Amino acid sequence: MEKKRPQILITNDDGFAAKGLRKLVTLMRTLGDVTLVSTDEVMSAKSHSCTIRDRLYVHQIQKEEGFVEFRCNGTPVDCVKLGYQKLMPEPPDLVVSGINHGMNAASTVVYSGTIGAVIEACMNGLTAIGFSLFSLDPDADFDHLDTAILEITRKVLKEGLPKGVCLNVNFPKRSEETLKGIKVCRQAACRWVELFKDQYDENGQQFYDLEGAFESDDITPDTDLWALNHNFASLVPTCFDWTAHAQIEPMKNYESLSIKP
Amino acid sequence: MEKKRPQILITNDDGFAAKGLRKLVTLMRTLGDVTLVSTDEVMSAKSHSCTIRDRLYVHQIQKEEGFVEFRCNGTPVDCVKLGYQKLMPEPPDLVVSGINHGMNAASTVVYSGTIGAVIEACMNGLTAIGFSLFSLDPDADFDHLDTAILEITRKVLKEGLPKGVCLNVNFPKRSEETLKGIKVCRQAACRWVELFKDQYDENGQQFYDLEGAFESDDITPDTDLWALNHNFASLVPTCFDWTAHAQIEPMKNYESLSIKP
Repeated sequence: MEKKRPQILITNDDGFAAKGLRKLVTLMRTLGDVTLVSTDEVMSAKSHSCTIRDRLYVHQIQKEEGFVEFRCNGTPVDCVKLGYQKLMPEPPDLVVSGINHGMNAASTVVYSGTIGAVIEACMNGLTAIGFSLFSLDPDADFDHLDTAILEITRKVLKEGLPKGVCLNVNFPKRSEETLKGIKVCRQAACRWVELFKDQYDENGQQFYDLEGAFESDDITPDTDLWALNHNFASLVPTCFDWTAHAQIEPMKNYESLSIKP
Repeated sequence: MEKKRPQILITNDDGFAAKGLRKLVTLMRTLGDVTLVSTDEVMSAKSHSCTIRDRLYVHQIQKEEGFVEFRCNGTPVDCVKLGYQKLMPEPPDLVVSGINHGMNAASTVVYSGTIGAVIEACMNGLTAIGFSLFSLDPDADFDHLDTAILEITRKVLKEGLPKGVCLNVNFPKRSEETLKGIKVCRQAACRWVELFKDQYDENGQQFYDLEGAFESDDITPDTDLWALNHNFASLVPTCFDWTAHAQIEPMKNYESLSIKP
């Protein structure tokens, strides 16, 4: 009897036409049957937002042996919800998001639609990986990542992931040097220092354009930023439990506050 | 010499007119000078999204002794960025978000614009608290929370919070019984089970309306859900480090994958 091929759900936050997404589809089709649900528009910085007040429209774009493609007017999180609940005959064995044009390492994950999709899948008990490349170039070259992406994905398909844990994988900027390997590491702390540009529109009204510079001083060798800066892929086991567990005991003294109205 | 009053930045995700927001302004004005930056529209489920491709317009709505109010066309995260970088003469001593109409406990925090604002502040080194009430009623009664909100805020203003940690405070549904107290606890795991309604628009085109039912079996006494279900306020020390630290060592075997292109 033929062994059933893995069922893989793919989405991203760079929109349906992104080169990284198409690359991911090509790679995943060598491993299983792919359902692609992507977004009409670019959804960078949409984080974990989902559509609760608008109508969600879904269109089937193409269907062939081992591949179905849908597109919707929602966010990456909507794509996951729709994909596993409505568009696939049964929940997928794996959800893969990316390959993002731009890095989703360090605490920039909080802004990422790509990682939003991965965490949404994880919260719903699905196995999920996000892949991102440290380059915003829309024509970035992804070919040198083929082996890494396939090997990581094969291992996840074979072994699964711990409950409540998904993977956030980032690849460094392409360099002359071959990718050195993978580092399993923690998410570094960082922030965007905003450079709001004061501008004026055609009616003379002031507006702001949000730009920013990335800033971090958290670059010890156990961090994803260190890995990427040293030409390693970073692999961060990621969770949706945001509790600062170490602070629960020290903050128990809040329980003695008198709060009677 | 007169002691300088604390400078407090307020935002929310229910829009500028929300009763919970206005309540929070009234309470915070008893503790310090308030700058309010709220959004033109309701921003529930906007999570940590921010505006990177559109123009951000800000309007000053009113200004009086100890209170300035602005409104913008962005998200709660944009409100924090604009507030502390552009609209306040110096960064605030405290950022407070809410009072949200609806609970932001358990892993529903990932969707919350209210908590997005709190985490944005925290990432930028600011002291931040989110307050939410377990009631979606736009006319919900918040008066019984006055003492609790003021006491928690006074303690935070006096003692500060550990680096990289913010507070997510939820209050239970109003009941006959007086609020029992505060529990310092962890974020429970949960998920939304989607109930997509297949509907058809005026042109006969199918669309989906996202609804959902809240589901969790993670209700041991150390969780925020337990606290809320037993008429306690839940206080979860919350962080933006999403690393599943316990999984770094067990997953080190990913480093031995051969990934040469």
